[in-house]
Amino acid sequence: MARVVVDVTIKPVILDPQGKAILGAIKRLGYEGFDDVRQGKHFELEVADSVTDAQLEEIAESLLTNTVIEEYVVRRVENEAE
Amino acid sequence: MARVVVDVTIKPVILDPQGKAILGAIKRLGYEGFDDVRQGKHFELEVADSVTDAQLEEIAESLLTNTVIEEYVVRRVENEAE
Repeated sequence: MARVVVDVTIKPVILDPQGKAILGAIKRLGYEGFDDVRQGKHFELEVADSVTDAQLEEIAESLLTNTVIEEYVVRRVENEAE
Repeated sequence: MARVVVDVTIKPVILDPQGKAILGAIKRLGYEGFDDVRQGKHFELEVADSVTDAQLEEIAESLLTNTVIEEYVVRRVENEAE
């Protein structure tokens, strides 16, 4: 089995109101040095070793991402400390 | 400036209906070898170098995570290819 992470974020050119709201809350809590916050979706998939990178890209693009406003990153994390 | 990622996921013991729905969709699309999908939240923060790990942990725990049902991982990613 392999563990794969797909992180989906809103494209930088698109306004992220959720991120802005969190940034405002952080500043109201008195923290300094926080310049930007962007919120996205984090998917963790348990897949058989037979699953190819191409299949993962297809699923990330067609099912997990709205490619008009979002972009994604696919990472295999079986070795990484996660 | 440093880039920090906070990934928030539902605790393994908690049912993740969203993840189950995505898993069902993947299988209906005819893909094989997918055993589990869990969906969480992905935050990307741009922070000054003065921001400490302790502050990041505080914010992750108090603002970004519902610690009753969720757990989080904080990662500095300025070097990692992301």
